[in-house]
Amino acid sequence: MTEHSQPEIATALQPEMPPTRWGDPAQAADLPEGVRSLVGTVFPLRDTSVCLDVALPPARLGTDHVAGLAMIVGEEHVRADDVTRRLRTRGKSTPDLLRQRGGDLGDAPDVVVRPGGHDEVAAVLDFAQEHRLAVVPFGGGTAVTGGLVADPDAAGLAGVVSLDLGRMRRLLAIDTVSSTATLEPGLRGPEAEALLAEHSLMLGHFPQSFEYASIGGFAATRSSGQSSAGYGRFDTMVVGLRVATPVGEVRLGSAPANAAGPDLRQVFLGSEGAFGVITEVTVRVRPRPAVKRYEGWRWQSFTAGAAAMRALAQSDLMPTVLRLSDEAETAINLADPESIGEDSAQGALMIVGYEGSVAAVDAKQAVVTATLQSLGGTPLGSAPGERWAEGRFNAPYLRDSLLDVGVLVETLETATFWSNRDNLYVRVKAALEESLGEGTMVLCHISHVYPTGCSLYFTVAAPGGEDPLARWLPAKTAACEAIVAAGASITHHHAVGTDHKPYLTAEIGVVGAEVLRAVKRTLDPVGILNPGVLVP
Amino acid sequence: MTEHSQPEIATALQPEMPPTRWGDPAQAADLPEGVRSLVGTVFPLRDTSVCLDVALPPARLGTDHVAGLAMIVGEEHVRADDVTRRLRTRGKSTPDLLRQRGGDLGDAPDVVVRPGGHDEVAAVLDFAQEHRLAVVPFGGGTAVTGGLVADPDAAGLAGVVSLDLGRMRRLLAIDTVSSTATLEPGLRGPEAEALLAEHSLMLGHFPQSFEYASIGGFAATRSSGQSSAGYGRFDTMVVGLRVATPVGEVRLGSAPANAAGPDLRQVFLGSEGAFGVITEVTVRVRPRPAVKRYEGWRWQSFTAGAAAMRALAQSDLMPTVLRLSDEAETAINLADPESIGEDSAQGALMIVGYEGSVAAVDAKQAVVTATLQSLGGTPLGSAPGERWAEGRFNAPYLRDSLLDVGVLVETLETATFWSNRDNLYVRVKAALEESLGEGTMVLCHISHVYPTGCSLYFTVAAPGGEDPLARWLPAKTAACEAIVAAGASITHHHAVGTDHKPYLTAEIGVVGAEVLRAVKRTLDPVGILNPGVLVP
Repeated sequence: MTEHSQPEIATALQPEMPPTRWGDPAQAADLPEGVRSLVGTVFPLRDTSVCLDVALPPARLGTDHVAGLAMIVGEEHVRADDVTRRLRTRGKSTPDLLRQRGGDLGDAPDVVVRPGGHDEVAAVLDFAQEHRLAVVPFGGGTAVTGGLVADPDAAGLAGVVSLDLGRMRRLLAIDTVSSTATLEPGLRGPEAEALLAEHSLMLGHFPQSFEYASIGGFAATRSSGQSSAGYGRFDTMVVGLRVATPVGEVRLGSAPANAAGPDLRQVFLGSEGAFGVITEVTVRVRPRPAVKRYEGWRWQSFTAGAAAMRALAQSDLMPTVLRLSDEAETAINLADPESIGEDSAQGALMIVGYEGSVAAVDAKQAVVTATLQSLGGTPLGSAPGERWAEGRFNAPYLRDSLLDVGVLVETLETATFWSNRDNLYVRVKAALEESLGEGTMVLCHISHVYPTGCSLYFTVAAPGGEDPLARWLPAKTAACEAIVAAGASITHHHAVGTDHKPYLTAEIGVVGAEVLRAVKRTLDPVGILNPGVLVP
Repeated sequence: MTEHSQPEIATALQPEMPPTRWGDPAQAADLPEGVRSLVGTVFPLRDTSVCLDVALPPARLGTDHVAGLAMIVGEEHVRADDVTRRLRTRGKSTPDLLRQRGGDLGDAPDVVVRPGGHDEVAAVLDFAQEHRLAVVPFGGGTAVTGGLVADPDAAGLAGVVSLDLGRMRRLLAIDTVSSTATLEPGLRGPEAEALLAEHSLMLGHFPQSFEYASIGGFAATRSSGQSSAGYGRFDTMVVGLRVATPVGEVRLGSAPANAAGPDLRQVFLGSEGAFGVITEVTVRVRPRPAVKRYEGWRWQSFTAGAAAMRALAQSDLMPTVLRLSDEAETAINLADPESIGEDSAQGALMIVGYEGSVAAVDAKQAVVTATLQSLGGTPLGSAPGERWAEGRFNAPYLRDSLLDVGVLVETLETATFWSNRDNLYVRVKAALEESLGEGTMVLCHISHVYPTGCSLYFTVAAPGGEDPLARWLPAKTAACEAIVAAGASITHHHAVGTDHKPYLTAEIGVVGAEVLRAVKRTLDPVGILNPGVLVP
């Protein structure tokens, strides 16, 4: 019943990602010659190379460690070979990729352990605590803020276990009356959707990393997806959690909401493996939508489009998808004179998507359309929406292709209240442009809106020079400092990891940081859980 | 523009509540003779008396303590007289009222201190920590779960300071772009609404205690109001908090939502004065609704009505108010043959309310009406809705009148997932009936619904006998044990206090309780904050 030839989201299991690139190796491609020429008019192109014959640091674990872990999960699920260790080294930020391309595997885990369920996770934690081994939970491996980079030395630990949750991929329970499903953390987005689809249900969480990211990762990082306007952030979908910690199990979720003290679910959501390993997630599910309609709207400016988004959000009148590119992103990414008219790359392009029953979509679309028209928006029809939907998960492939030709590309994001949106936008953009210098392109979009505020997602492209990593790191610092100076959040949906940790205390205060340390000490007294991540 | 003669919610400051009763003394009334006769056919009536000449325990604080506190807040804002101490003794549960009626003031604070703002709160906490004094934050005084009953002896403290927030009643900031307002904690519901109304704005939080309860109390107890279907729980309205703790200030709220680690706002929401004193609350506000329409629907049974609520919630098709009485509550409270037809007291009565712009209300009402009709509901028109709206804050007055004639009346509430609703309902009802014996009347309604579940709110009436308190306490224990056995939440919107503390560990687990203790130790190392409340 899908209208307008919207492609269904693929739900087949994706192949393992290579260490130096995003996604399915079969989809990796050089830039088409035409695009390469176009890029070359903007950025100096350089040949780059990937260091293939890399030396891993010697594994720090002894055979007794490996044997002990094998006793718990089975010999075939403990791997200490170089290929596996390299595949579990860091995540998929541009610095992560650049380090892998350069052969820097200094953060490689010593061993990769694949538990089969909650009890094996708990047993691995006991073993790791006894033997003072760091444990880094690994879900989809899509982390972009250094959440997979543990520091065993700082914690005085003997080595690093990558706790690969890839065997924990079951739909454990489904409650069609309550509309909930209990999922294991290793399920990737498409797999979870495929299991739910067998019951004609859907989760509806579609971040850009959807094809690879995992249910456990969504929970541990407070992820937010492209349909957050309609279906909410991942943390709002979660009604229950089971967590293995070194001091015992935690089960939360007695009701959708309650007043039984602080909501401890919200302490484990966003805990990034530092407080425990999330072994079960109970989420709200929904009927699969009968129709999906995505369309484009043009606004005179980013500011005008943002005002329209604010008006929708404050009227509690939200479509399922609501995104707005600034003028630069509109011009660069979204121009398509053929399909949507000559001036389509002018102003600011908004994507508005509706999903649900025909009747509900018709009704919502009518009201939203009237509102957007009254606010001065120009409807562009379905072509821009379909283009967006087709390419919604593809940006990381383009990043690889650009890194290949020496262009530095990275993204970062933040959130604030509406009255601070423009100030935040101007400051972050200026910080990035100033740090990276001439020839830098900073694009921005709003992809998550609330009645009181929104996120800002920046894409940066700049000449990579001889050492793109050395160029990026100070730019990221400058952007983070601008975010802090603007009083905004250091991250809307990508977590703290190690990259944002220096800025967290500014956001939650000295006492707030002390609360995190107290929780950490209580749940992880030896400090084995993702040491160095999250907790200031 | 209000339609259907809906009374506006009064926003004038209510007078101080007397210690032995709810609400405005001018509204206290004996049961009308006709009602008294009717009640007499069901329950044995008894003369009751209120002990007026009560002896307070001697104040444990020395003149140096009083002088020190007066240095901080001013002499006129420190009161240790018997009248003031009695007014700040406990809250408004039936046990609280029965103890006050019986002259038991064993939990009286030693002194009442009224700070003028955040800095004075912080200074009082410093002083209290130095002198080992318990501090019990006091907002509206409407607590019903023992949240105002501190235990200074258990914590080895020298006495109890009631920290009366009644001077902190300012609207500190308003951001009309972001639709947020920053409120001081001592503002009662009607005052906060009156201040916002000057800007044509509204908060929209209307619990039954609305006329007396305070903004700080709403936050500290995770309150939920009668319009939660449309406007959400109080915790979902909060975007920022400022909290004074003995170890320093906490300010949270960098954005509507973020991924910067655990959401620490959710640790202070529901913290019941045990982690700090909430001194500022930034909330989402909304335009005042142009129209309010409340109407009645009849369902064949409580089960059929609950199924309809579930259908609405799972379609994200929520009116502003959505309530459903079970057959017993429908028969007792809502029968009105004159206005709504002879069989109106049969089946289960649902109240459905719509608030907003005319266009939005028209649209929502049309869709909800069609859905409810398709599910088998019978529309009863606006009369039952108007009756409900007129009496929405009055039940506590009726409780007083019934206590006066020897009838034991109390309420309790819980929440669970939809698939467990009937099991929870049956178990709690049976536990109350069994404990209180013949002649007990147990009424129930659902007043808060979610896609995945709902609350259940029970009203119990039974012969009070010679010692109604001695009859109630075991019944409450039996109900709590039934809730725990059903795997539900010990409280949906009334907090833990001291009454629910014995059941909290069953709900959040041993490790969850340890997390609360760790946060408590960190923020309140001496243990002065509401000792004995919340933390297991």
